[in-house]
Amino acid sequence: MSRKLIFRVMGSMLLVEALAMVPALIIALVYRDGDARAMAASIGLLVLVGAPMYLLCRKSGQQATLRAREGFLIVALSWLLLSVFGALPFVFSGLIPNFVSAFFESVSGFTTTGATVITNFENLPHGVTFWRSFTHWIGGMGVLVLTLALLPRMSGRSSHLVRAESPGPTLSKIVPKMGDTAKILYLIYTALTALEFIILMIAGMNAYDAAIHALGTAGTGGFSNKGASVGAFNSPVIEAIITVFMVLFGINFVMYYKLLTCSWKDVTGSEELRWFLIIFATVTAFITVMLIPTYGHPLIALRYASFQVASVISTTGYATADFNLWPIATRMLILLIMFIGSCAGSTAGGMKVCRIGMLCKQGLREVRHVFQPMKVQVVRYEGKGVDEAVLRQVAVFAFVYVALIFIGGFAVSLEGRFDVETNLTAALTCVSNVGPGLGAVGPVENFAGYGPFAKLVLCFLMLAGRLELFPILALFHPAIWRK
Amino acid sequence: MSRKLIFRVMGSMLLVEALAMVPALIIALVYRDGDARAMAASIGLLVLVGAPMYLLCRKSGQQATLRAREGFLIVALSWLLLSVFGALPFVFSGLIPNFVSAFFESVSGFTTTGATVITNFENLPHGVTFWRSFTHWIGGMGVLVLTLALLPRMSGRSSHLVRAESPGPTLSKIVPKMGDTAKILYLIYTALTALEFIILMIAGMNAYDAAIHALGTAGTGGFSNKGASVGAFNSPVIEAIITVFMVLFGINFVMYYKLLTCSWKDVTGSEELRWFLIIFATVTAFITVMLIPTYGHPLIALRYASFQVASVISTTGYATADFNLWPIATRMLILLIMFIGSCAGSTAGGMKVCRIGMLCKQGLREVRHVFQPMKVQVVRYEGKGVDEAVLRQVAVFAFVYVALIFIGGFAVSLEGRFDVETNLTAALTCVSNVGPGLGAVGPVENFAGYGPFAKLVLCFLMLAGRLELFPILALFHPAIWRK
Repeated sequence: MSRKLIFRVMGSMLLVEALAMVPALIIALVYRDGDARAMAASIGLLVLVGAPMYLLCRKSGQQATLRAREGFLIVALSWLLLSVFGALPFVFSGLIPNFVSAFFESVSGFTTTGATVITNFENLPHGVTFWRSFTHWIGGMGVLVLTLALLPRMSGRSSHLVRAESPGPTLSKIVPKMGDTAKILYLIYTALTALEFIILMIAGMNAYDAAIHALGTAGTGGFSNKGASVGAFNSPVIEAIITVFMVLFGINFVMYYKLLTCSWKDVTGSEELRWFLIIFATVTAFITVMLIPTYGHPLIALRYASFQVASVISTTGYATADFNLWPIATRMLILLIMFIGSCAGSTAGGMKVCRIGMLCKQGLREVRHVFQPMKVQVVRYEGKGVDEAVLRQVAVFAFVYVALIFIGGFAVSLEGRFDVETNLTAALTCVSNVGPGLGAVGPVENFAGYGPFAKLVLCFLMLAGRLELFPILALFHPAIWRK
Repeated sequence: MSRKLIFRVMGSMLLVEALAMVPALIIALVYRDGDARAMAASIGLLVLVGAPMYLLCRKSGQQATLRAREGFLIVALSWLLLSVFGALPFVFSGLIPNFVSAFFESVSGFTTTGATVITNFENLPHGVTFWRSFTHWIGGMGVLVLTLALLPRMSGRSSHLVRAESPGPTLSKIVPKMGDTAKILYLIYTALTALEFIILMIAGMNAYDAAIHALGTAGTGGFSNKGASVGAFNSPVIEAIITVFMVLFGINFVMYYKLLTCSWKDVTGSEELRWFLIIFATVTAFITVMLIPTYGHPLIALRYASFQVASVISTTGYATADFNLWPIATRMLILLIMFIGSCAGSTAGGMKVCRIGMLCKQGLREVRHVFQPMKVQVVRYEGKGVDEAVLRQVAVFAFVYVALIFIGGFAVSLEGRFDVETNLTAALTCVSNVGPGLGAVGPVENFAGYGPFAKLVLCFLMLAGRLELFPILALFHPAIWRK
């Protein structure tokens, strides 16, 4: 294993993070809330650590190629390091003085979870709060994808990196060169974010709020600068805009590339996209009907149902209503879509619609196998027969996903706080990178009530969920550390 | 498909059920609680329906062979029919006048779940209550296995029937002939049950209570004739005896055959048995430590922890304490072992230790695959490499298992009763055939609070869990009904 290579890539990643903090520094300088020093100090530290790592390990590393083991080690360690440094502005500014809590907020940001430990939303410093939302945006598409887009000459098989960071069972490679794919993805991502920013401003938001919420939607993160989340604006128009964009950011970005290149058939023929929209529409319709008695009017019920469903299925986590108070059956559906999440290749979390689809088809195959044990049956997805190894991996993924939620929920419970519903949904919402759960971690609550141990467990779950379980779990395997 | 053959097997099964009701009739005649008429009427109805089915369809059926489709159809329909007729004594005696509730009790009995709708445990009629416990005993080993043991000349590939009824991913065939295997299994089963019965009587139980609780333990069911379950006897000795037997009935019955034939190495070398005992011991130890503050003394904590853990992991469901009131982390462990259950080839439910073992090994393989993507890795279980198709089936089984719990929990919630914790654990405890869940379906509660719709949903889940999902799910596939 080439340690120098790993250091070099991680060094460049830290420099990219320093660069990513610059907008927040500028905003801090403009608003003068006293957080400019915190941002500047964080940038300074990042450069101080990142530059030597990048420069000193440069020469020998350029020749080495990136093998799978290095690739995944880089991804897992990068995300840990990214979150540690990302927490610094929170600590330095005094917004979250406790480092573990700040680390939780940082992990929650980068993994696009959006679970917060902030309890007081008054007088938030503008710069650090912008950084908090900006972590969503970076984490949504992936920091190594970003590094790759900015430093295209990185040697070796960089597809390992992108594969580890891209959500979904298969890698969506648009163009042959990985660096070009990364660039195209980031361009689409930036354009969509900018579009939402502009529309939100037209709808009446000020530039700062529009930026915060566009970044939070784009990364499907969910951090808001308001205690009542998007509900604070109390505007059906703003809610509708964000609803639409939450759904849009739950769609595989390759679809947008196909739209731009006029490959309509690839879009209309996408099985995953179709099912994603069907699930969204069905669950919304169902919950709307269930909520009519609560809200009195079908349209008001639709307004709250569609926003909350879009928020949960896209694993964003914004809220305009407290679904903790909704009828029990609606809460069960909310739980169900927390598992499912959105499309592979989007910025969203969850198990992904395509995995659920393949699993359902495998389930159906087993049912048919009961009465036709001799017939060989191929599982087809997106019109193609799926390799049995992929099917097996998807099924094992699902098992590990559920097992992590239960083991994580148990670990969190060791602190002795809260109830089964709270602790299990806290684990679920963290693995799925949603944000709010049920009970004491509901949409109008926060995660400040957990102690440092539970917070670290939840950080682990968020990272495992964001990086699709195995890269993070591999860190615990002794063999990965062997020379 | 040979309808006549299906009718014939189901007819014989009904006659076996009539025979199984005779002991309860005798007990009813002895105790004179006024329930003898109910038992007699049920037997009469069973013979009236079963005899013509068996006799009229006899001739043509004898030539036909049993194909997989017929086999599974027979199993699924038999269990439905069995439960419908098994509910009659409850209705006729007036113990549970509502038929849906009686059906729930009957399904809960045969599937060895032990979830009850009875709220008043005073003056239970002895005969019908004995029948209620006897359903556990029949359901534990399988009614078709019993039919096969009694009617060994049934033609065709009867292993389909046994496979569908035996818990676990693989069929444990002890001797070449299926009928002989069935007989040996039932002999071991009867002997162990009788042993527990005798020991319980020596420990001070009266014959009737000893019979009820021996049957309930043997089938890993959990029905008691006391409102406080085994806790009513308030005897550490009785609790210890039942604890040991609950664990014993959670072990693959093939192990007892191996013991009798002195194949010690097969027993000591069994990976599943080892892990079952490790899980039992670890969870018990952990919960004991957690409970010391609650009960004051380590031995008292051990008494309650070991009984409850044995009860849940063996999916029996007897209680001597209300784990709803225990610390949150212990309840999470209880939930976890509700999923796992016991060994394949036992009378217990749950996902089975061997499946969990294979899944964990597959998970580990995926982790290794992260950094060694080129290395072909075989998953070994019980010393042998496991076929990839079996591994896939096990993983899909786990997915369908969890999906059923969530979909079932959602369906139950449609009634608008109880909370997420109650409804999800109700679904879990029914699929795993345990009995009690958390919240409003905890160990000192019952299922009477659910409406008829939820009860039927839970019946479906219990049957699906007992028959290992796919035979019951196959009933919903249109192709199985095609000629």
